[in-house]
Amino acid sequence: MYEIMLDLEGKGNKNLYEQIYEFIKKEIQSGNLKCRERLPSTRKLAGQLSVSRSTAQLAYEQLLSEGYIESVPCRGYFVCEMEELYHLKPGGTVQEKEDRSAKKSCPYDFTPNGVDLAHFPYATWRKLSREVLRDDPQELFHLGDPKGEYALRSAISTYLHQARGVNVQPSQVIIGAGNDYLQMLLARMLGTGHRIAMESPTYRHAYEIFLRLGYDCCTVSMDHQGMDIQELGASGADIAYVMPSHQYPTGVVMPIKRRQELLQWASKEEGRYIIEDDYDSEFRYVGKPIPSLQSSDTNQKVIYIGTFSKAIAPSIRISYLVLPWPLLVRYEQVGKNFSCTVSRTDQKMLQLFMERGCFERHLNKMRALYRSRHDLLLTEVRRLEGVRAVKGERSGVHILLYMDRKWPEAEWIRRAAEQGVQVYPLSEYCVDQREMEPAVILGYATMETEDISLAVEKLRQAWGQTENGNNCRKSEFDKNQRDL
Amino acid sequence: MYEIMLDLEGKGNKNLYEQIYEFIKKEIQSGNLKCRERLPSTRKLAGQLSVSRSTAQLAYEQLLSEGYIESVPCRGYFVCEMEELYHLKPGGTVQEKEDRSAKKSCPYDFTPNGVDLAHFPYATWRKLSREVLRDDPQELFHLGDPKGEYALRSAISTYLHQARGVNVQPSQVIIGAGNDYLQMLLARMLGTGHRIAMESPTYRHAYEIFLRLGYDCCTVSMDHQGMDIQELGASGADIAYVMPSHQYPTGVVMPIKRRQELLQWASKEEGRYIIEDDYDSEFRYVGKPIPSLQSSDTNQKVIYIGTFSKAIAPSIRISYLVLPWPLLVRYEQVGKNFSCTVSRTDQKMLQLFMERGCFERHLNKMRALYRSRHDLLLTEVRRLEGVRAVKGERSGVHILLYMDRKWPEAEWIRRAAEQGVQVYPLSEYCVDQREMEPAVILGYATMETEDISLAVEKLRQAWGQTENGNNCRKSEFDKNQRDL
Repeated sequence: MYEIMLDLEGKGNKNLYEQIYEFIKKEIQSGNLKCRERLPSTRKLAGQLSVSRSTAQLAYEQLLSEGYIESVPCRGYFVCEMEELYHLKPGGTVQEKEDRSAKKSCPYDFTPNGVDLAHFPYATWRKLSREVLRDDPQELFHLGDPKGEYALRSAISTYLHQARGVNVQPSQVIIGAGNDYLQMLLARMLGTGHRIAMESPTYRHAYEIFLRLGYDCCTVSMDHQGMDIQELGASGADIAYVMPSHQYPTGVVMPIKRRQELLQWASKEEGRYIIEDDYDSEFRYVGKPIPSLQSSDTNQKVIYIGTFSKAIAPSIRISYLVLPWPLLVRYEQVGKNFSCTVSRTDQKMLQLFMERGCFERHLNKMRALYRSRHDLLLTEVRRLEGVRAVKGERSGVHILLYMDRKWPEAEWIRRAAEQGVQVYPLSEYCVDQREMEPAVILGYATMETEDISLAVEKLRQAWGQTENGNNCRKSEFDKNQRDL
Repeated sequence: MYEIMLDLEGKGNKNLYEQIYEFIKKEIQSGNLKCRERLPSTRKLAGQLSVSRSTAQLAYEQLLSEGYIESVPCRGYFVCEMEELYHLKPGGTVQEKEDRSAKKSCPYDFTPNGVDLAHFPYATWRKLSREVLRDDPQELFHLGDPKGEYALRSAISTYLHQARGVNVQPSQVIIGAGNDYLQMLLARMLGTGHRIAMESPTYRHAYEIFLRLGYDCCTVSMDHQGMDIQELGASGADIAYVMPSHQYPTGVVMPIKRRQELLQWASKEEGRYIIEDDYDSEFRYVGKPIPSLQSSDTNQKVIYIGTFSKAIAPSIRISYLVLPWPLLVRYEQVGKNFSCTVSRTDQKMLQLFMERGCFERHLNKMRALYRSRHDLLLTEVRRLEGVRAVKGERSGVHILLYMDRKWPEAEWIRRAAEQGVQVYPLSEYCVDQREMEPAVILGYATMETEDISLAVEKLRQAWGQTENGNNCRKSEFDKNQRDL
């Protein structure tokens, strides 16, 4: 029988039983202890090493649990057979640093993706967080409803009904952690084999997510009213993804006639659906909000997707789907197994934020802030040389400048960057590389009001100027505005 | 030309321009205003209604935005052509109540799914929440890293290395809102066309999620060492889903020999993977923790999935994947488009919770608590009649009682329920309806210590007793313990 030759450390980091366990494990791994070899009994081992029998017992228990040794009744402990030796790699604690080199920053960045977080209601959010966590709310830490909490879905329904004219019952609302996740979940309900049509240019991120989800995606031309319905019909698509209230990035508002044509297209065949992405409809600066497309849908054809990323902050990770009834039935079959991806404390905070009017107040505050930037930017850009027309204004948090063809798009952007101003190419939103007029996007959500004038002045320097041609230019500009 | 016949309310809820807009919209919808009909100029309309010209302008702007009318330069405003009338449904604010009838509650519920939330560190959590939200942390509300924040991934890597022997760099860790979501994300990396083998009985929820994700799933028998590798080889599966440290629900710990066989199976063909679900390995009451399977994997074949649902609370919705390098490459191609589903404030709180040792303290507290319940329950169940063997002990938060065949499983459960004790059928964890010994599951995470004895006493009454047969029964019990 094998004899254990081990000097135990009296006061090491490890318990005695761990030292024994480690030693025997290494002996087995190194082959010193052979398969089927018999180990001393716990009594004998305890004697050999001058430890208590329970210490020996504990060491063997661990080896038994991990399968290194086995206990044969009335015979004792034996080393197990193993196919090959088991080597625990040393596995250092060295941790690589990911490449997170800072992005080159431009003094003036007209990014269309940001949100002004200087005005986020931190104090309210903290207060709600304290309130929600007060009194040890056990209930909130249990798993909740897969669709999201009823109270939050109810608050969202009320909001959507009032603000967006959406026809919705709380049971149609599915809450999820961001649009990407909801697209993933929606794919479960829609199933495979669909072709999804999106406008060109469009929100490329959504396009790429659908591609990743295995869908056949295509783009359809758009004019000043939105997606070309004839081209949609010819595309073979059975799902159309649109942003009728404020198309991203063009800012086109789809008029009622085009909406009806789109709804008619969907009604023509069973299984056709329209996904309405209503990402920034909260911010409209002139007149009443444009109603949602969903509100005119009488045939259960519109899947509405909304988010709090623009209206509150990207990182709160709360978006929602409003499903038409046929897809809600599918959800019950294939979707409700997936647990809700938003924590219940976060859901509760948002629910209270909405119920107590904080959301409304925040929206009004942000709308006023964004509007002042919008108005200022619109005034300022009229000073610019080379701008044929401004589009996408009145809503959202970005505008489009259609530029003179004297330079290609990249040249307008390069010249701006040289002056320290980052503007964004419209062409990047085109999936297909179709011929387009040069155009740049200016987002103003993260641009301080006082910086807007400074940044536009830089653009003026970048893009040249005519000192005395402004009036003539202005009337030409207005003509272009109408024509485009 | 059409003349507007409208009595404006001086002090209604609506602005003057809204009243004009609503009126004209209804006139168009009802057909009183026909397609291509010309509307009065804003000057004329203002005169007719005795409103300012800017009010008239605003009403027309809204109608223009929504596409009801169009402006023809130098000619005026005309009603648009529409395919069919657009009817805004009245859309009541009635909200259905979902059927949420309270679950029948049993006085003593041995649910295996719960977590003791009475001992959740609410005060610490509140403190972290306050701290994270203090000083208006703008950065935390911007969109973060799709994999999850580096600092949290780093904290998880350190924990996994120390506690589970997992070989991991932070870049291999992907954070997501719950296991269901991570299975969904993993499906993007794995692609379609795989057959996934799970043990029987198994964690059915994961099985059903894989089915929903479109995978061909099969079950493989298990013995007292875990999944039958020969049967796995014959199953045609290329992915095996296992819980080697404490199989759910049987509690089997996979010994080193079987682990090596499993790893060898995976190495035999390219594209084979093992998913290691390490859901409750934190709770082990005897000896050291069982190392993870991933720690013995030298061929990049193990996908490790861990969660904080058991160790902290189900509703914090934070789980993680540790990807082997080949799948990390796939993630870069097809996964990183999906934004992280956990809010950055929640990530930050968990990161601090781990870095400051709160997680360790919490685990130790819960382990001690669960162990005392485990020990008491094990002692108590020996008093029960009809229990052939107890399995799955020493780890996790549930045990299995293999019962006498004198009654079918359902009868054991029915009798318990009659006495107000809810125990759970093992057969429900079997996907295939294979013949099994009757067995019931007793979870003790949510059972107060003082209730355990009371509940087991109820079970004793439910399942009968022999006053003087205890000793004889006990030795028979011990024999069964060894044999099963």
